[in-house]
Amino acid sequence: MRILLLNGPNLNLLGEREPDIYGRCSLADVEAMVLEHATQAGVELDCFQSNHEGALIDRLQEARNVCAGVIYNPGAHAHYSYALRDAVASIHIPVVEVHISDVHAREDFRQKLVIAPVCAGLICGHGVQGYLEAFDLLMDIIGRQ
Amino acid sequence: MRILLLNGPNLNLLGEREPDIYGRCSLADVEAMVLEHATQAGVELDCFQSNHEGALIDRLQEARNVCAGVIYNPGAHAHYSYALRDAVASIHIPVVEVHISDVHAREDFRQKLVIAPVCAGLICGHGVQGYLEAFDLLMDIIGRQ
Amino acid sequence: MRILLLNGPNLNLLGEREPDIYGRCSLADVEAMVLEHATQAGVELDCFQSNHEGALIDRLQEARNVCAGVIYNPGAHAHYSYALRDAVASIHIPVVEVHISDVHAREDFRQKLVIAPVCAGLICGHGVQGYLEAFDLLMDIIGRQ
Amino acid sequence: MRILLLNGPNLNLLGEREPDIYGRCSLADVEAMVLEHATQAGVELDCFQSNHEGALIDRLQEARNVCAGVIYNPGAHAHYSYALRDAVASIHIPVVEVHISDVHAREDFRQKLVIAPVCAGLICGHGVQGYLEAFDLLMDIIGRQ
Amino acid sequence: MRILLLNGPNLNLLGEREPDIYGRCSLADVEAMVLEHATQAGVELDCFQSNHEGALIDRLQEARNVCAGVIYNPGAHAHYSYALRDAVASIHIPVVEVHISDVHAREDFRQKLVIAPVCAGLICGHGVQGYLEAFDLLMDIIGRQ
Amino acid sequence: MRILLLNGPNLNLLGEREPDIYGRCSLADVEAMVLEHATQAGVELDCFQSNHEGALIDRLQEARNVCAGVIYNPGAHAHYSYALRDAVASIHIPVVEVHISDVHAREDFRQKLVIAPVCAGLICGHGVQGYLEAFDLLMDIIGRQ
Amino acid sequence: MRILLLNGPNLNLLGEREPDIYGRCSLADVEAMVLEHATQAGVELDCFQSNHEGALIDRLQEARNVCAGVIYNPGAHAHYSYALRDAVASIHIPVVEVHISDVHAREDFRQKLVIAPVCAGLICGHGVQGYLEAFDLLMDIIGRQ
Amino acid sequence: MRILLLNGPNLNLLGEREPDIYGRCSLADVEAMVLEHATQAGVELDCFQSNHEGALIDRLQEARNVCAGVIYNPGAHAHYSYALRDAVASIHIPVVEVHISDVHAREDFRQKLVIAPVCAGLICGHGVQGYLEAFDLLMDIIGRQ
Amino acid sequence: MRILLLNGPNLNLLGEREPDIYGRCSLADVEAMVLEHATQAGVELDCFQSNHEGALIDRLQEARNVCAGVIYNPGAHAHYSYALRDAVASIHIPVVEVHISDVHAREDFRQKLVIAPVCAGLICGHGVQGYLEAFDLLMDIIGRQ
Amino acid sequence: MRILLLNGPNLNLLGEREPDIYGRCSLADVEAMVLEHATQAGVELDCFQSNHEGALIDRLQEARNVCAGVIYNPGAHAHYSYALRDAVASIHIPVVEVHISDVHAREDFRQKLVIAPVCAGLICGHGVQGYLEAFDLLMDIIGRQ
Amino acid sequence: MRILLLNGPNLNLLGEREPDIYGRCSLADVEAMVLEHATQAGVELDCFQSNHEGALIDRLQEARNVCAGVIYNPGAHAHYSYALRDAVASIHIPVVEVHISDVHAREDFRQKLVIAPVCAGLICGHGVQGYLEAFDLLMDIIGRQ
Amino acid sequence: MRILLLNGPNLNLLGEREPDIYGRCSLADVEAMVLEHATQAGVELDCFQSNHEGALIDRLQEARNVCAGVIYNPGAHAHYSYALRDAVASIHIPVVEVHISDVHAREDFRQKLVIAPVCAGLICGHGVQGYLEAFDLLMDIIGRQ
Repeated sequence: MRILLLNGPNLNLLGEREPDIYGRCSLADVEAMVLEHATQAGVELDCFQSNHEGALIDRLQEARNVCAGVIYNPGAHAHYSYALRDAVASIHIPVVEVHISDVHAREDFRQKLVIAPVCAGLICGHGVQGYLEAFDLLMDIIGRQ
Repeated sequence: MRILLLNGPNLNLLGEREPDIYGRCSLADVEAMVLEHATQAGVELDCFQSNHEGALIDRLQEARNVCAGVIYNPGAHAHYSYALRDAVASIHIPVVEVHISDVHAREDFRQKLVIAPVCAGLICGHGVQGYLEAFDLLMDIIGRQ
Repeated sequence: MRILLLNGPNLNLLGEREPDIYGRCSLADVEAMVLEHATQAGVELDCFQSNHEGALIDRLQEARNVCAGVIYNPGAHAHYSYALRDAVASIHIPVVEVHISDVHAREDFRQKLVIAPVCAGLICGHGVQGYLEAFDLLMDIIGRQ
Repeated sequence: MRILLLNGPNLNLLGEREPDIYGRCSLADVEAMVLEHATQAGVELDCFQSNHEGALIDRLQEARNVCAGVIYNPGAHAHYSYALRDAVASIHIPVVEVHISDVHAREDFRQKLVIAPVCAGLICGHGVQGYLEAFDLLMDIIGRQ
Repeated sequence: MRILLLNGPNLNLLGEREPDIYGRCSLADVEAMVLEHATQAGVELDCFQSNHEGALIDRLQEARNVCAGVIYNPGAHAHYSYALRDAVASIHIPVVEVHISDVHAREDFRQKLVIAPVCAGLICGHGVQGYLEAFDLLMDIIGRQ
Repeated sequence: MRILLLNGPNLNLLGEREPDIYGRCSLADVEAMVLEHATQAGVELDCFQSNHEGALIDRLQEARNVCAGVIYNPGAHAHYSYALRDAVASIHIPVVEVHISDVHAREDFRQKLVIAPVCAGLICGHGVQGYLEAFDLLMDIIGRQ
Repeated sequence: MRILLLNGPNLNLLGEREPDIYGRCSLADVEAMVLEHATQAGVELDCFQSNHEGALIDRLQEARNVCAGVIYNPGAHAHYSYALRDAVASIHIPVVEVHISDVHAREDFRQKLVIAPVCAGLICGHGVQGYLEAFDLLMDIIGRQ
Repeated sequence: MRILLLNGPNLNLLGEREPDIYGRCSLADVEAMVLEHATQAGVELDCFQSNHEGALIDRLQEARNVCAGVIYNPGAHAHYSYALRDAVASIHIPVVEVHISDVHAREDFRQKLVIAPVCAGLICGHGVQGYLEAFDLLMDIIGRQ
Repeated sequence: MRILLLNGPNLNLLGEREPDIYGRCSLADVEAMVLEHATQAGVELDCFQSNHEGALIDRLQEARNVCAGVIYNPGAHAHYSYALRDAVASIHIPVVEVHISDVHAREDFRQKLVIAPVCAGLICGHGVQGYLEAFDLLMDIIGRQ
Repeated sequence: MRILLLNGPNLNLLGEREPDIYGRCSLADVEAMVLEHATQAGVELDCFQSNHEGALIDRLQEARNVCAGVIYNPGAHAHYSYALRDAVASIHIPVVEVHISDVHAREDFRQKLVIAPVCAGLICGHGVQGYLEAFDLLMDIIGRQ
Repeated sequence: MRILLLNGPNLNLLGEREPDIYGRCSLADVEAMVLEHATQAGVELDCFQSNHEGALIDRLQEARNVCAGVIYNPGAHAHYSYALRDAVASIHIPVVEVHISDVHAREDFRQKLVIAPVCAGLICGHGVQGYLEAFDLLMDIIGRQ
Repeated sequence: MRILLLNGPNLNLLGEREPDIYGRCSLADVEAMVLEHATQAGVELDCFQSNHEGALIDRLQEARNVCAGVIYNPGAHAHYSYALRDAVASIHIPVVEVHISDVHAREDFRQKLVIAPVCAGLICGHGVQGYLEAFDLLMDIIGRQ
């Protein structure tokens, strides 16, 4: 089985950007951590990060034929990109949304999650640990299909 | 380890109430299903359902000393009970909220989730299957603490 | 046939509480008046009042198997209790909501009726007389089913 | 006693217009059904339908001297005509508002009922049957005055 | 000079309708009072009342060629009829809006005045006296043109 | 084939009313222009203008049996008449809404179009030319049915 | 009889400030114009302008014992000063509010008039001419008391 | 004299729950502190805490015959329980509302106080000290009745 | 100890202005009453009333060095003066806000209290008696610091 | 003449994505259908689809020099991309917006159309047929320029 | 050249008031710092602080004839004083608004800036340093006029 | 020192697009003007324009290591791109936002600035001149760091 780990805009700066909110772990660290976890589970992992909305839509669409599910941290796109929402809704494979920080405890505009309603699960505020929980939840959902 | 499976108002009518939205499985069926799943995982399960906000708060508070986590379907309380929100926030054990139907695809008032922001995870719209996914996610979160 | 007359929070103080809004008739008076009216119609009447949301949900659920319909004055629950709304929607017997005062002519928060949309009828602002009208309307609705 | 059965805009197309929402019964059928019901109750019935707001106000005003009450389906006027609201408030005879479909389960603009707050009763979503229930409720209200 | 005194829906019931809000003076009384006032000022007065939005628009349009100004009590149309607003804006003669009661001290929907912004003046809450003040204000505005 | 050209309130003043917004062309000019265009297309054209909401509803309803489609400029009714919306929705023939000026560049209340959602097409801001475009679009839609 | 002509903040710059909105007439010109008009009517006129909310309240309060009425252009205070609203409501002499420009055709914040609801009349958008109309309207209102 | 000290949901966890917001003092400590204070003032004190809305309403109603006033910390009920608001309004003895933390400096939903408008006084953000201030204020209000 | 009794705009008209809302007691009466009460408590009292926002800010700032606390009725400033809010927040001595009438039972704009959130206590709707209660509460708060 | 057929995000999945809303026709089918239609009309057609907002802006800008008009289905960009709105407004060639499904009958966020106000026409809810109608309307608009 | 440094309400307490938000530098320190900076630039500096809205308007108006520009920290007036907005708009010399703290990261009411839209520039959240930046920006803007 | 001059979507059409709003100066002209200004100040200037949100984020991120600051005109992205907001907030170098036209005097959606709150300064409505003022302000801010 193959899973896509997708990260949206500015997550390439993880560890460098506002570390008291997002922690000091880099995106490479996160991807390595999830990869190790996936390998143990016998699952292949594709990793992709982009600051481009269109590239993320393209990647989600490609995933629909080659992956069994997606772990997706949309970054700020979570709050306004209806195009990404439609992409998630179009691809018929489960997507688990993950946010590192607790979006509910931050600025007002971060309270509005436009992609989440079409996702299979949502995990917020558990730090980078949340990626592993999202992986496990995704495995669980796929296993029950 | 012991886990609490908590169900809020009207969930005792599961299977009887609006079956095209909530399915035909009764609450006893759900509790049996989760119990079997828990037993296989070597976990003890307490089940509790009430139509009383206060009784649910009492039960959540009791759980903080005897359970490692809570699977909680708050029913309509999800949309207005700040007292239950405070209870969840007070008890320092992870709570995973689960809804059988997809609350985002129903009436407007069901879009507002006042307890979810203080929960550890949220699973919506997977039918009664979502209880098992919530169980697994909860195990995962507890295991990583 | 058996009918449930259900009264929500603070209606036990009827006649004592803000008499220029709610009149000087006590709850016992109201229940006696409706009972006499029901008896004349050959209908048995169960009376129940509670200040507890949960107890009211319990009672509505019990009624679904033993009563043909409900006359229900939800008091202030009318304005926020989605759990009671779900209870009414779950029980498949007609419920007629009645308010003694004209809720539309009072505070803003009383303009929002969250239970009414799932009731079979609504009567407001006719004083305690409205209970009798609700009884007759309920009989009428049941008779036509 | 004489009662006015008043129907607002587009109800002359009843049975033809969106039959899965409004049913297949024509306005003539409805009027005949209520007439038969009224005759049995020894009540005379005036029937009037118009697509003209002004004609409906005129008719409500005339009714105040010759009728004991009004059964009124305002159609879409229900949602914006404050002039009709004022007409109902001006005429000192009870008006029972009736809607064939459940306005609460349709478009947002149909949630706002501007005439209902000055009516004596409201019956929604019981199909054309609701006209008979409105008749009976009106009789009941008149009888208690 | 000729002036139009225009009254909208339900003002034909003046004196009869909610007399503690609108007073006990009838529309005929008001028209006679304004007529006497106009005659003293050497001004001809046309009086027109209708419950029909369309008839009021027609009359406003006719006035543009034969009258020097309009005294207009739009009744409840004041709160939603953009068609009447456009009619007033189209006719290039000054219109003074008058309300008998103080609309600001009544229901919320009466706070919104959609015609007033295109009127030359607004007088509220002076009872039927306000018609005379509107007449004088209109004379004054016409005299200064 | 027969088509109805329907114009709402105040459009009889076209050319006279606010010419910098609506142009100097009269309604007669518009009707003649569309008639010539229709004749060339071998289509009969009925023209109707009214300031009366009810008369417009009546005319739309009549059109459902004798016309293949409607070109409709609702004037200010566009912004609040849900009765006209229901009329359009009831008649099962395509209606193309046209506005002479660009409603989006004017007052706030003109941003809300309550009839448009049930129309087959919408053309705004092309001046009286828009009537011809609406005619052609209507022909096109009818041809494809 | 004595009348107060009261002008609020920034009106001392009249003629200099944004002349395409407010015209080229200075405040001295306006006061002279109203004074001449008042003198002809045998009325004494007090003129006062201030940029200080408190000074304006003081002046309104003083006027209650020595003046028969007030012509008042509150400038931007019109949109937020509830203290001035209370002052007008407290003084039991009629106040006619006047605005030189049409506040309804300007920025959104100018649509909210917090003092107007307690004034006896309102005249907007007639340029400095509006002061004379306000004078005449005030005379008329005083004469009828 | 007898006074009721009433505490709402989750206040039984005081000292344990979010101590940086609510302090480390337990509910027993608070009750002992107020009791000592009351005893010194020669006042008897009833203490009651519940997580049940209905039980709190029951207790407030009982208090109306045996207590001279109530010190009441409604916890999260403060933000949505109109039933408790009605209970306070019904009982004709003064109720002083107290919050340990400053609700104005926390989440948005805590800004809305639905019970406070019918209380005799409000004290927020003084920590558990606020209970003593509330006691003294209540004594003062009772003494002046 | 010295206390400041501060009254905002229009309170100098107390007893004269809308006596059915504010009572017939003058400001001098209120100040005398509080002074007598303070003298009995061995406290010096400064009294200050102004219609000027700036003068009130100045006085609050001066008080921070010479007074132990402030009793403050901000009048209509309560609803919009963020400058006075900042002044209260800046001065590090407790301020108890008092309103004579029940602001919650009046116009909508009086529901918004912008200064109250930074005050130490709030007393509404107890008439002029509220000033004495505010004095006692202030003494109590100061005594506990 | 050359026309651009532009399709926004996720329209490349047409026929595969939610077929009960969007139909079973693929994007290639749509492009072939419009191409055939254009060829018959002697018009060259450029087809472009992208999931990238920036690429769509680039393409619209290029079109301004080589195409006479644009048929544009913006997909979910329709609801938030002000950058695409500005692109359409910048290019001085007519753009007709087309939506396959009826956006007014779907989720709330789809009611807001941010690009439509600067388009020359709008066609919704006619399925893929709407592309042909858009083509014809565009030809008509271009022909009249 | 002469520049006005204007400070609004409560800024005279700078250094004393909430030092973790506003820093420990006094207003005298700020004025000395800007004066030194201005002197180096060969610019004369007038300094003025007031807690009085009216005095600030007066000072802004005076500046229009003697100063080339204004550095203005309006304090809390920034959020509601439309009178100061009008004063800035009236005076035809550039005004640069400066806030010491980042208003966007504080209470909700501080998000609304009513004066800023008519200022030439805005600098927030750079501490007292922002005054120097405002000075330089103002010089730059004046130099380019 | 090196500075980035960044321009967002549609600014490549500067001089061609809506010249009465944006002027007739092209983007090349603007870049040349700023370049000359920078060269005089001994500063290197990188210029970049893109219609792609993602490309702009990439460029902002690159700048964080090689530039001392950014002059940024986000075009319509200013009103909705939270991803660009996060990019600006992530990069720890000062960004000055500049708009050529006065966004406050245009459409409603342009009033909302989502990137500005995390910028170091904001300059609007000074035409292309504003780029030079932004440069100078940026130099000033960098110089003071």
